[in-house]
Amino acid sequence: MTVIRKNFGSDNVGPAHPQVVQAMLEANRGAVASYGGDPWTARVGTLIDEIFQTETTVFPVATGTAANALALSALVRPFGAIVCDEVAHIMNDEAGAPEFFTGGAKLLTLPSPDGRMDPEVLQATLARRRISGVHQSPVEAISLTQATEWGTCYPVSRIAALSAVARENRLHVHMDGARFANAIDFLGATPAAVTWQAGVDVLSLGATKNGAMAAEAVVFFNRDLAREFAQRRKRGGHLWSKQRFLSAQLTGYLEGGLWLQNGARANAAALRLSQGLAALPGVAVVQPTEANEVFAALPEPLVVRLEAAGYGFYRWARLPGDGGIVVRLVCAFDTTEADVDALLGKIRRDE
Amino acid sequence: MTVIRKNFGSDNVGPAHPQVVQAMLEANRGAVASYGGDPWTARVGTLIDEIFQTETTVFPVATGTAANALALSALVRPFGAIVCDEVAHIMNDEAGAPEFFTGGAKLLTLPSPDGRMDPEVLQATLARRRISGVHQSPVEAISLTQATEWGTCYPVSRIAALSAVARENRLHVHMDGARFANAIDFLGATPAAVTWQAGVDVLSLGATKNGAMAAEAVVFFNRDLAREFAQRRKRGGHLWSKQRFLSAQLTGYLEGGLWLQNGARANAAALRLSQGLAALPGVAVVQPTEANEVFAALPEPLVVRLEAAGYGFYRWARLPGDGGIVVRLVCAFDTTEADVDALLGKIRRDE
Amino acid sequence: MTVIRKNFGSDNVGPAHPQVVQAMLEANRGAVASYGGDPWTARVGTLIDEIFQTETTVFPVATGTAANALALSALVRPFGAIVCDEVAHIMNDEAGAPEFFTGGAKLLTLPSPDGRMDPEVLQATLARRRISGVHQSPVEAISLTQATEWGTCYPVSRIAALSAVARENRLHVHMDGARFANAIDFLGATPAAVTWQAGVDVLSLGATKNGAMAAEAVVFFNRDLAREFAQRRKRGGHLWSKQRFLSAQLTGYLEGGLWLQNGARANAAALRLSQGLAALPGVAVVQPTEANEVFAALPEPLVVRLEAAGYGFYRWARLPGDGGIVVRLVCAFDTTEADVDALLGKIRRDE
Amino acid sequence: MTVIRKNFGSDNVGPAHPQVVQAMLEANRGAVASYGGDPWTARVGTLIDEIFQTETTVFPVATGTAANALALSALVRPFGAIVCDEVAHIMNDEAGAPEFFTGGAKLLTLPSPDGRMDPEVLQATLARRRISGVHQSPVEAISLTQATEWGTCYPVSRIAALSAVARENRLHVHMDGARFANAIDFLGATPAAVTWQAGVDVLSLGATKNGAMAAEAVVFFNRDLAREFAQRRKRGGHLWSKQRFLSAQLTGYLEGGLWLQNGARANAAALRLSQGLAALPGVAVVQPTEANEVFAALPEPLVVRLEAAGYGFYRWARLPGDGGIVVRLVCAFDTTEADVDALLGKIRRDE
Repeated sequence: MTVIRKNFGSDNVGPAHPQVVQAMLEANRGAVASYGGDPWTARVGTLIDEIFQTETTVFPVATGTAANALALSALVRPFGAIVCDEVAHIMNDEAGAPEFFTGGAKLLTLPSPDGRMDPEVLQATLARRRISGVHQSPVEAISLTQATEWGTCYPVSRIAALSAVARENRLHVHMDGARFANAIDFLGATPAAVTWQAGVDVLSLGATKNGAMAAEAVVFFNRDLAREFAQRRKRGGHLWSKQRFLSAQLTGYLEGGLWLQNGARANAAALRLSQGLAALPGVAVVQPTEANEVFAALPEPLVVRLEAAGYGFYRWARLPGDGGIVVRLVCAFDTTEADVDALLGKIRRDE
Repeated sequence: MTVIRKNFGSDNVGPAHPQVVQAMLEANRGAVASYGGDPWTARVGTLIDEIFQTETTVFPVATGTAANALALSALVRPFGAIVCDEVAHIMNDEAGAPEFFTGGAKLLTLPSPDGRMDPEVLQATLARRRISGVHQSPVEAISLTQATEWGTCYPVSRIAALSAVARENRLHVHMDGARFANAIDFLGATPAAVTWQAGVDVLSLGATKNGAMAAEAVVFFNRDLAREFAQRRKRGGHLWSKQRFLSAQLTGYLEGGLWLQNGARANAAALRLSQGLAALPGVAVVQPTEANEVFAALPEPLVVRLEAAGYGFYRWARLPGDGGIVVRLVCAFDTTEADVDALLGKIRRDE
Repeated sequence: MTVIRKNFGSDNVGPAHPQVVQAMLEANRGAVASYGGDPWTARVGTLIDEIFQTETTVFPVATGTAANALALSALVRPFGAIVCDEVAHIMNDEAGAPEFFTGGAKLLTLPSPDGRMDPEVLQATLARRRISGVHQSPVEAISLTQATEWGTCYPVSRIAALSAVARENRLHVHMDGARFANAIDFLGATPAAVTWQAGVDVLSLGATKNGAMAAEAVVFFNRDLAREFAQRRKRGGHLWSKQRFLSAQLTGYLEGGLWLQNGARANAAALRLSQGLAALPGVAVVQPTEANEVFAALPEPLVVRLEAAGYGFYRWARLPGDGGIVVRLVCAFDTTEADVDALLGKIRRDE
Repeated sequence: MTVIRKNFGSDNVGPAHPQVVQAMLEANRGAVASYGGDPWTARVGTLIDEIFQTETTVFPVATGTAANALALSALVRPFGAIVCDEVAHIMNDEAGAPEFFTGGAKLLTLPSPDGRMDPEVLQATLARRRISGVHQSPVEAISLTQATEWGTCYPVSRIAALSAVARENRLHVHMDGARFANAIDFLGATPAAVTWQAGVDVLSLGATKNGAMAAEAVVFFNRDLAREFAQRRKRGGHLWSKQRFLSAQLTGYLEGGLWLQNGARANAAALRLSQGLAALPGVAVVQPTEANEVFAALPEPLVVRLEAAGYGFYRWARLPGDGGIVVRLVCAFDTTEADVDALLGKIRRDE
């Protein structure tokens, strides 16, 4: 029997991967030191160092918002500013968490039609701001989203170019990697190449959307910046007493490359969906499908029919005139070809 | 074979209870709405309402510090103050989280030799402060710990007396119930009697120390105060996308009264330990053992020998002169009679 | 003898007006109640009520940044957002004070080529944001600058239209009136018409730039919103113990209409300068001169020569190609026709 | 004619000293650079360096609360703690400003029956806290009040002893010198000896209570700590655009030693009052009068009669039993012998 899953709403509506669950179950034995003094937390550090081919400082936390906001609080002062893309999660979807954790730093956005910032626009923006004394919030960091909120990926060269501008202006570089696995799969580059070798100081490495229950890792490549992190994490209520259950999710996720396999599965499903949609009359894929999200413009009556049929997805924007509705369709590690084909079939029939 | 567990360091060094784990495994199926729109979260609300015999507003979070700090942020303004006991967790062990989440409110402590605040001292303190305009931080809430950090419990009458003073002074009442189950077991009163019927507005209901992996519930009896909670929780990075895994811990914990059974087990072990210690020459139990923590004064050489033998516990204070070391010994739901007897035997032999 | 003043850099480089000084000297007698319990503070309230033809709640503070940031903290919650124009002082020139005083609220900007927000753009922006639950910072206020940072003024109809959109979306309305007197002079409308009658809840009424030493008044028309202001002002270190010296500046400024006379003088000087510049070949006035600031595009060699000759002003922007430099030239209440004509003559000679 | 002033309520109910006013009037000429680029601000720096016989970094601000809170924000991190005496102004009378400006740091108090902290108690307190990882707020600074809130002064040896403990524990040292001039007059020590030579890192140097309108100076002896101050001051709304009027108050206050003369006058009046009171039957001076504040226990009927006669002062505490009321009587630079004698005469007649 084939169970068709109709939920393309987000990669957070799905379950945890069995390997993650198994790691948690194995961790559930006997007494171990609390607050991170457990073997699973140590193992996370080792795994991350191996995967990124460098020595890092790693902090597990339970949510992406916590990972991003805490990471940013290590990069800017309360009176500083962060530059990000205009559709960034930290700007639009975290309820002011970055402002809260940084103590009031300002987020400034750059135009980014496909979710990616442009190094020249960054340089020009910084140059325009570099005017006077204490009246302006000094930009102290940039934040890239990889993969972006428009389902695209930053190639290594673009990251390096942005980092170069950042270094020149003495800014730190943060990467929001809620969908980092999907980006690595698409780019075919090493995790090292996409991060510290391209100038990234700290990465929010996502796991929740890609197979964990609630686990992310804040990975400092620039380890000096991690100095206050442990205290800020505790103050934010993000230090788990039984941290083994957080860390075991990450070991389960990282051991044996599960994270990459899951990312590849989700990407493949999204690509299949994207190509299927592109082939349909009246449907347009409006952003390159480079990760696990597909953005497509559909006629509104079709959108309504899909919703009525129980398909889960988000209306993202309404195009002017009769251009239709841009919807976001997200695939996850457990999205099957059958799931995708059923959706495509439904659309084909309903058009 | 009897496995002797030697860790009396905290109730957070132990594993999760199988029933909690089972509930998480059952929740790990298919796609469900994220961010709390799942059936497990709904079920938590129902269970809490039943247990407390009233309509409540409930928010699951992963840590006790998050529960306390977020709850307090609903009770006081950034320029307000909170009165708590001098050994309160919120004052001493949460790294400034209450100040962070409230936006800078002040914590003021009352003397509380056994962990409990005194209603008359509270009244006198408030009367002394009630002086002038805008220069002082207005006290806007009190926070009780139940069971207290000294392993004692507030009887219902004391809670009611403190709440009466609070009401008279227009203060809200918070209860830090990280060990609420242990208190209910000791008091033999209903959860309703110990909380809203005695004037408590909001309870941090602990589960992590008593069988969960990482789960607490913020329970608002005064539901008006919950108005901004959802936004503050998100802003604090404490809203799980896959919230079912947080809520399922709580359903597993609460269904069928597991929470009370676990609390009773931990209390019984602590009482056995306390009575055993009290019977030993040279050992003094220095606080009434009313929950799952035993505070005992031991000669320092004995403390050193226990540490060397691999027993885990905290040195809490050094008594003046030759009074010895006050140690904290914590029992949990999985502490067995054998564990306790082994420790007592070791002490008996080593004295 | 004519003293030519060459400083067009800002209206804050000049002295205080003699009538303001005189009021301060008169206040410097004997003992009076501190912290605002003095007759001058009471008089400020009366004067403001008369000028605005309604009952208000007024708080004197020493700086415009304090006035704006404290006023905004009364309008939005820490997790809320404020919409303002893209050149707003609160966004660009106050070092993050609004974020600091609000506890982390977010500032969002609208395109505003002449410094003014557009009601339709505001409506469209709010409609686009009105998506989902707790993930986005809810917009809770808008802030208008009157006169704007581009030297233009909002006509009453535009304020009313923006306020209507605000009301419909349940937003509060703040007006940054650092140059309010200049706007009133230009518009020829009553202070009431420009503020509460057009939907403004709270006004930062400037005095420093227009004749005071260091004095602004936060004027609440929506008096409910003033509830926490006194405590927030004290907590911000903005409550003067000898408040008479702050309030006396405001009585000196407001009594007998000095504020309007000063505003009119500054505006007249700016208009003379603007018209003189517009008549010169190679010079373009790039924004309508509706208050006391003139924005003009000058060839760069001319700008350099003026700087070398000791004229004070700001380079505001560099136009593309050979378009020259946009400079900002500010006139104040003590700028004379001779000052303006000397500058115009210098430019004429140097071209 | 002798004008008898009856206000002993505070040293902030009085006027500004003519020399301060004169300096402000002289500063009120022509255009000068704003935001501290004026000659008066430069002169303040020079004067402070001379007075303290060392190179300092100085920031004028308008209020004592701003001076203290901003200074403390330079010494501790948001998750840190500050130790102060239990009657400290920063703890009790600044509406949470230290918590606000530091971003949530915790204030911890030491018993201090006469307003002074004890080095041994400080050491013991720090030793007791030095327990564990990230759960406690690390103490990062101490704050002394000089003269204290009980009208006493720290001798140089006590400051040095406290600073030694601070250094050993890697804490910074702040001095709240709202009444610094009174302390210097009493101690007969140099300003250098009382501050940096005894280990003080930063001083809030008061002027408002002792002759200015609204002016204090934050003086950094440890100039590295001043790094972020300018930005924090701006963000707090405490940077005056027309800063000359703030700085001129300080030049008027400091030039020619006016500050010390004023301090000496206030102290002499207080001493005369204290000695007069001590000689009266039924009246007890309850703290040593070492500055310009007298704390005396009076029978309540006498207190009532004085209040009815229009004398201004604060009821500070009620002694147990029939011990009477402790009142605070403050003398200022303009309190005359006649003022004091009139009060003493009134008391003598009324007893």
